[in-house]
Amino acid sequence: MALTLSLIREAHARIKDKINRTPVLTSATLDAAAGARIFFKCENFQKVGAFKARGATNAVFVLSDEEARRGVATHSSGNHAAALARAARLRSIPAHIVMPNNAPAAKRAAVARYGGRIVFCEPTLEARESTCARVLAATGATLIHPYDDLRVMAGQGTTALEMLEEFPELDCLVCPVGGGGQLAGIAVAAKSMKPGIRVVGVEPAAADDACRSFRAGHIIPSVNPQTIADGLRSSLGTLPFAEIQRYVDEIVTVSEESIVRSMRTIWEVMKIIVEPSAAVPYAALLEDKLNVAGQRVGIVLSGGNLDLDALPWMKSHA
Amino acid sequence: MALTLSLIREAHARIKDKINRTPVLTSATLDAAAGARIFFKCENFQKVGAFKARGATNAVFVLSDEEARRGVATHSSGNHAAALARAARLRSIPAHIVMPNNAPAAKRAAVARYGGRIVFCEPTLEARESTCARVLAATGATLIHPYDDLRVMAGQGTTALEMLEEFPELDCLVCPVGGGGQLAGIAVAAKSMKPGIRVVGVEPAAADDACRSFRAGHIIPSVNPQTIADGLRSSLGTLPFAEIQRYVDEIVTVSEESIVRSMRTIWEVMKIIVEPSAAVPYAALLEDKLNVAGQRVGIVLSGGNLDLDALPWMKSHA
Repeated sequence: MALTLSLIREAHARIKDKINRTPVLTSATLDAAAGARIFFKCENFQKVGAFKARGATNAVFVLSDEEARRGVATHSSGNHAAALARAARLRSIPAHIVMPNNAPAAKRAAVARYGGRIVFCEPTLEARESTCARVLAATGATLIHPYDDLRVMAGQGTTALEMLEEFPELDCLVCPVGGGGQLAGIAVAAKSMKPGIRVVGVEPAAADDACRSFRAGHIIPSVNPQTIADGLRSSLGTLPFAEIQRYVDEIVTVSEESIVRSMRTIWEVMKIIVEPSAAVPYAALLEDKLNVAGQRVGIVLSGGNLDLDALPWMKSHA
Repeated sequence: MALTLSLIREAHARIKDKINRTPVLTSATLDAAAGARIFFKCENFQKVGAFKARGATNAVFVLSDEEARRGVATHSSGNHAAALARAARLRSIPAHIVMPNNAPAAKRAAVARYGGRIVFCEPTLEARESTCARVLAATGATLIHPYDDLRVMAGQGTTALEMLEEFPELDCLVCPVGGGGQLAGIAVAAKSMKPGIRVVGVEPAAADDACRSFRAGHIIPSVNPQTIADGLRSSLGTLPFAEIQRYVDEIVTVSEESIVRSMRTIWEVMKIIVEPSAAVPYAALLEDKLNVAGQRVGIVLSGGNLDLDALPWMKSHA
């Protein structure tokens, strides 16, 4: 089954009273530096501090009452976990969150704040999936995968709906790629609404499985990637990959140094807090990899959750 | 001569196309914690990253062409300096900025970015004023004092105009006090528009000259105050004090620890960057000093400029 604009519109109708319609910010300073007009969609101001609220909320509220009663479960690097916990609380059902034991303190706290039941595991994909399987067997909960799930992808695509409703003149949409759920959702929505728009994914060169998979035409999983963009360490999912192959124009990579510079520039100039993953698309502009001179570029600032005690420019973390 | 609502309205008409109409943000999380509804006026998103753009722009554009031609000058701890440099550039006139040689790097860079001509001096009020006097004598420039100036105070008061136009139901306005220009401008505007509104100034306990002066009924200057809120180290000005005595209901003080906790809470929950001075009003809520349970409270987040390499929770600065 493929993702469609109809599914994304249904998702938007379902979740729009349960999430923030996030603002789009612009900066004359950054426009001048880029030689383009940039429209920053501030999902860092989204509920739970990240776009993940969209997909998780859609996935929880699309369940039947009987399914919902048994709860939901997931394994997640953080933002999806908090988002699922919050959505489950909104529906008054349990959320079982399998989380790597090295997840940032801020992300663990966020899950606990929303009443999620945390089950820790080793920080490997295998451990997360096996632990999750045990939880599912024990509870009868519904698995809500962080990205390899059409309900989640439909929710993430609602970001593009909002952007193109407000700014139909956008020439290009740029979004980070981790598991690919957001890029797939945005690509399906944007290309269906405006076939001429360009959709570009950006990922860390240190976690470039989406770029390599896109070029090869089949999924090449990443193996324990080391990037500061902790939200983008996941390997590309099968369902997102199908949509990305069909709808995305290009996937480019950026260096760790550019990601940090991008993040710091956004903090300093725009006075808003974005996490490293969210700084990845603008890093591609800093590296001059997008060829968008004179264009109107939509950039998704995907989240704002990070540990303020471990900023990349602090001495002990440099 | 006293500040009036008419002068503030004229200032707004004069500057409104040259500054940002800053957004007002709210947070369900912070509302729940405070037991009140808080409306944060985001002057950290103002031009030059601080409310100072309002007063400086009004002061520069109210000058006659002949006065303007000779330029403007000031001594400032930072944000007023950048704001004056920017306003002068908009009017294509020179701005001479006398600045203490220990001003944060980010603030010096901001002045340079807008083409201000920096003259460094020792970090004492006396050195700043004597150096400024020499510059004035040499150039014939007009002194634009950072706060002891009706043109500047009128500009700062425009923040309250915007807040009460959008949220006439506010019960209380809370704003930081340094030299007092912003508090005076806001108090005159707010009390003239809505006599029943409560206006409260908040300052660091470590720089409590406004609080002591307010209680004594005459100005008690501060002597080399040590507070992380670098924008609030100035002593209260004569002209602001007259308006504050007449229109402000109360001035309360907060600890350095509360200021840091306030700043970090705003960063973490709201995902926006505010400088220590801007975190001072919310610190008074954290210390439960305002008695605003159930009320609608307007808080001015006065600026967002600070050195990201010297955050108060970094080890070497703790």
